Parts: sequence; C-alpha cells; structure tokens
Amino acid sequence: MSESSARQAYKHGLLTSIAREAGVSVATVSKVVHGKPDVGPATRQRIEALLEEYGAGRETPEAAPARRIYAVFRDLDSPYTLEVVRGVVDAGSQAGFEVVIGTTMHRSIAQWLDACSDPGVLGMILIISMMAEHDQKRVLSKHVPVVLIDPLSQPLPGVPSVGVTDWHGAHDAVGHLLELGHRRIGIIAGRPHSPAGGARLHGYRAALHNAGIEYDTALVRSTDFDYGESVTATTELLTLPERPTAIFATSDAQALGTLEAARALRISVPDDLSVVSFDDTSAAATASPPLTAVRQPYDELGQIATSLLVDMSNGKSPVVDRFELATAFTLRSSTAALVAQR
Amino acid sequence: MSESSARQAYKHGLLTSIAREAGVSVATVSKVVHGKPDVGPATRQRIEALLEEYGAGRETPEAAPARRIYAVFRDLDSPYTLEVVRGVVDAGSQAGFEVVIGTTMHRSIAQWLDACSDPGVLGMILIISMMAEHDQKRVLSKHVPVVLIDPLSQPLPGVPSVGVTDWHGAHDAVGHLLELGHRRIGIIAGRPHSPAGGARLHGYRAALHNAGIEYDTALVRSTDFDYGESVTATTELLTLPERPTAIFATSDAQALGTLEAARALRISVPDDLSVVSFDDTSAAATASPPLTAVRQPYDELGQIATSLLVDMSNGKSPVVDRFELATAFTLRSSTAALVAQR
Repeated sequence: MSESSARQAYKHGLLTSIAREAGVSVATVSKVVHGKPDVGPATRQRIEALLEEYGAGRETPEAAPARRIYAVFRDLDSPYTLEVVRGVVDAGSQAGFEVVIGTTMHRSIAQWLDACSDPGVLGMILIISMMAEHDQKRVLSKHVPVVLIDPLSQPLPGVPSVGVTDWHGAHDAVGHLLELGHRRIGIIAGRPHSPAGGARLHGYRAALHNAGIEYDTALVRSTDFDYGESVTATTELLTLPERPTAIFATSDAQALGTLEAARALRISVPDDLSVVSFDDTSAAATASPPLTAVRQPYDELGQIATSLLVDMSNGKSPVVDRFELATAFTLRSSTAALVAQR
Repeated sequence: MSESSARQAYKHGLLTSIAREAGVSVATVSKVVHGKPDVGPATRQRIEALLEEYGAGRETPEAAPARRIYAVFRDLDSPYTLEVVRGVVDAGSQAGFEVVIGTTMHRSIAQWLDACSDPGVLGMILIISMMAEHDQKRVLSKHVPVVLIDPLSQPLPGVPSVGVTDWHGAHDAVGHLLELGHRRIGIIAGRPHSPAGGARLHGYRAALHNAGIEYDTALVRSTDFDYGESVTATTELLTLPERPTAIFATSDAQALGTLEAARALRISVPDDLSVVSFDDTSAAATASPPLTAVRQPYDELGQIATSLLVDMSNGKSPVVDRFELATAFTLRSSTAALVAQR
C-alpha cells in the first residue's frame, strides 16, 4: 500500500468515526475538513472540536506538498518585473506548482542552483540576469532544469532561453510612426550589448532604412531600461536645434521618462511629440497620456518557461534552445499624425 | 549522530577522496562544490567529472531546505501589489525563508490554509483580501500562523493584522493642500466599508473640519482603488460648475486616473489643479508630473509580517492584534500654491 493510499484509508476511517460521533454524514465532515462554507455554525464547531480531539487537524495533510518553481530576478523594481511575476505565478500555479519569487541580492545564482537540488524543487526560471559561464556549465553537467527569460548575454548552447520578437516589435513600433508621417524619429534605446536592447535598436534601424531614412546617431540615446536616465536623454533630444517629432522608447519605464521630459519642456504629447513604447505593462495603460506600445506576451512567457521546466525535469530536452514569442501592437493616445509645424 | 552531521562526515570523506584523485586541495574541491569562481577551467572540469562519478551532484544537498512563507494576494495587478511583493520577498529572504507568491484565484484561502499544514511552511501572509469567518476560526483553533496585511474587513480578535496609519496619512495629505491655500478640495476615495478606505476618507474630513471647511459631498467620489473608475469620477469633479482646485486621490492607481482625466480636459497639473496621492509606489515617482504622495512603508510591512509569523510559529502570540505603521510624506511636482484664477 502506497503512503498516500494508506493515508487516505486512515483518513476515511477517521471521518466515519467523527461523523458517527457528531451525528452527521461523512460528507458533512468532509466539507468542514475542506473548508467548504455550507455547514451550519453549530455543526461546524462540533465537528471541528472532534477533529481537534482526534488530532486530525494540522497533522494529516491532504496530499503530498506541491513542488515548487524558483523565479529569480535581479530586483523587483520595474513595472516589467510585476508583469513577469504575474505571468509566472499564473502559469506555475495552474500547472500545480508553488512559485517562489526571489532575487539574486539575497542568494547568488550559485546558491539558487544549490537549492534546486532539493527534490521538492522542479527547477529555476532566471529573469533578465547574467549567468556566469561556470554556473551555466554546472547546469548542463548536472542537468538542472533552468530556463532563462531575456538573459543579458547569449547563453551557452543547451541552456534554453525564452524572449520575445524584439526586432519585429521595434520594427512595428517605428513603422507605426512612419505611417503617421514622422521622418525625424528619435530612440531611447537600451544597452546595445544586451540581446533585447540590441535587437530593438536594429528593428528601429531597419524600419528607417526600409523607408529610405538615413540613420542619424544624433537622434539615438542608450540608457538602462529605466526611468531616470531616460528623462535626461529625452531632454537632450528635445532640445536639439532640430528636434525629433516622434520618439520610440524601448521600455515602458523609459517611455514614462520621455513623457516627463516632454511635460517639463511644455511639449505636448501627442500634439507636438508622438511617443511609442515597448513592454505594454500596466504602466503603459495608466500613463498620461496612455501609451501606444508594443506588447510582450507575459502570460505566454510564463507558460512556455513552466512547460520547459516540466519537460526538462522529465529528462526531455527542449526542441530548440531559443524561443521568441510574438509581440502585439496596442494603439492608445500617445501617437498622432504629423501635422505642419504650428 | 544527527542526520546532518552524518551527511557532513560523508561529504568530508568524499571531498578528500576527490581531492586526492584530482591532485588538488580539499579547499579547491569545496570551491567547485559551492560554485565559487576562482578555480581554473581545466581543474574545475576535472573535479566536476569526479563529483559526477561519485554521484555527489544533485544527491547531496548542502543543508535542510529553507522553510517557506506564503504571501497570498487577490490578484497581482496594481503597482501597490509589486511593492508589497518586494517588501515581503526582501524581509522573508533576509530572515532565511523562501517566499511563495500566490493568489486566491488559483487556490482558495481554505486551500492555502490546508497547505500550511506542511511542516516546510512557516505560515501565510494574506494581503488585501476578505477572509471568511469560518476560515478565521480555523486559524484560531488550529493555531495556524497567519498575518493579514490591509484586510478588507475587521478581522476576529486574535487574528493579527498589519496596516498603515491611513487616517493620519490622509490628514497629512489634505493638510498639505490646505497649507498651499486650497479650500475647494475634492477626494477620489476608496470604498467606505473597507477599513483603509474608510480611514482615509475620515482623515480628509477631519483635516477639512479643523480648517473650518464644511464637508461637501459634491466633491466626494468613491471608487475601487483602481485606475479606470477614477478617470470617470475625476472627470465628474472637474466638470462641476465650480470645480475643485485640488484633488486627494487615495491610491496611486486612482491618482494616475486623476492625471489622465485632467489631461483630457486640458487642465494642467499642478498649474490649474493640485493632485496628492496615497501609496507612493514607483508609479507615483514616474508619473507625469511626478506625484506628491503619502508613502506606505513597504519594507517595514514585510518585516513586521515576517517576524509575527516567526513568533507565532514558536507559539508566541502577538502583543496586540493590530499594528499600524507610520506613513511618510513625499513632496514632488503635482501640487502647487493656489494662485488667483487666470
């Protein structure tokens, strides 16, 4: 008899005894055990007292504890972070796992990998982080189920990573501005050495190129995907002798910085400046004005990462090392057709 | 010999054997085991191969797995949620726990309580949720360590809850507007039946009362602490025959809605309308204009909730049932002195 069927038989006998003693049906006792609402308060109290007496409270867990997935971030500061937390928690929970959220500030990546040796842990999803080569080698040699979301450098062959179609998304964003008649389009780019940052910058370049517009470094600024530096960088672009009529900000945090820089210079968005963003977190929808943005598929990122972990923990290698999920385009109020300068 | 010292002795013997075979020191083997960087690649590879051969990879965990804390939310949608996730993850991790983030959409509160019976679980922090009376009674009778953050209704005696000084914070916010000369001050309040919503509304009323200003229901709107309804409610206030010169929005999400409603009506903040918010999440700092706001102490909320769980799991009852942590005031760019109407 397996441990769990032994436990069930024990529990069944127990519920029957309690039902008899309380003068109710086994179903009613079961309802109280499972915390269901439709039992009268007096009956519930009587059954709870008996459960306590029989020691059937915290001592008889219903089932084996859920295995857990680690979702590890550098920090939990940006609106992007919250969307990924939600996507991973939703997908992991629906698949029956508990999702531990952590950061590399509290445990190093090596320590997280150590912790993955616990049999209660399915594996780890590591988000926008840099994984040292020796840690990646350890993952490969020990077959630790690990999936990277938006790694900050190219992972080793065999270490699977998931991201979005950064190049296409950026190309779409700039294509939208071109369709609105803009020709002088600035960019608040990410760091070019990060895969996502590089691909978004090249999507911008390709869209301009296809429209016959020369790439002008005067209109390009590179910052972290953060708010603060973007305020400064946008201010520089907007105080150029011939300022851009549109700006593509490559993250929502940067786009919020662009809006603030424009406001401080009393440049109205979208009347005097169009802004398109990348990420489409809740920060984009609630910005003033609400941001036209390229949307990352957060739910799907969580789902793919979770199912890759499940496969890997069953000894199944991913069919490819790199998955890029399609972005979508959300039109809101921060972009407008270019009109003759007033 | 305890299990863990047996494991250590086994491990020590193992490391010595591997060190001998690889022709290196035990310290070097230990470095590889712990994922430390300062070992040459060839040596590392040789040691890793031996560790693999000896079966010392995933099979010899370093220590007992960390116990976990459940932090359970209704949903993970608002900027407030992210700050609380960060606060709880920081505090829980620093105290040596793993923090599982979950929602009541995936498991009911009763199911989360069931899962708390796992000896690997310290207890549960339940955030802005409604806990049914029978679940609370179960917590009390079974001594499940549970702490509520900002519960949506008054908890039973004995169930500890943590929140902030909502009344004082609201009083300060409105006091700031009064000092700037505003007399016609609107409020986008929360739902009056939630403890936090009620206390913030009464803080507003008290500040007006102390300044000799009559409470005018025409200037009061109640919504969820969300963005969408706040846009509508603010639009109503700003299109009154005699519109307010300042608005107190009782959450950052509501304040973002207030900014958007003003922008759509081409009412400039802070020139023509002052706005003060409550929460001071990162959404306040990155709003356009950046929001003057009452700050909730997120780190401290996480720390208190964690230490209460630790105490309770050691059989120590909290000294009081209700903890209110002080708010702070952050001055930014969304408020200005009232000037004669232009």
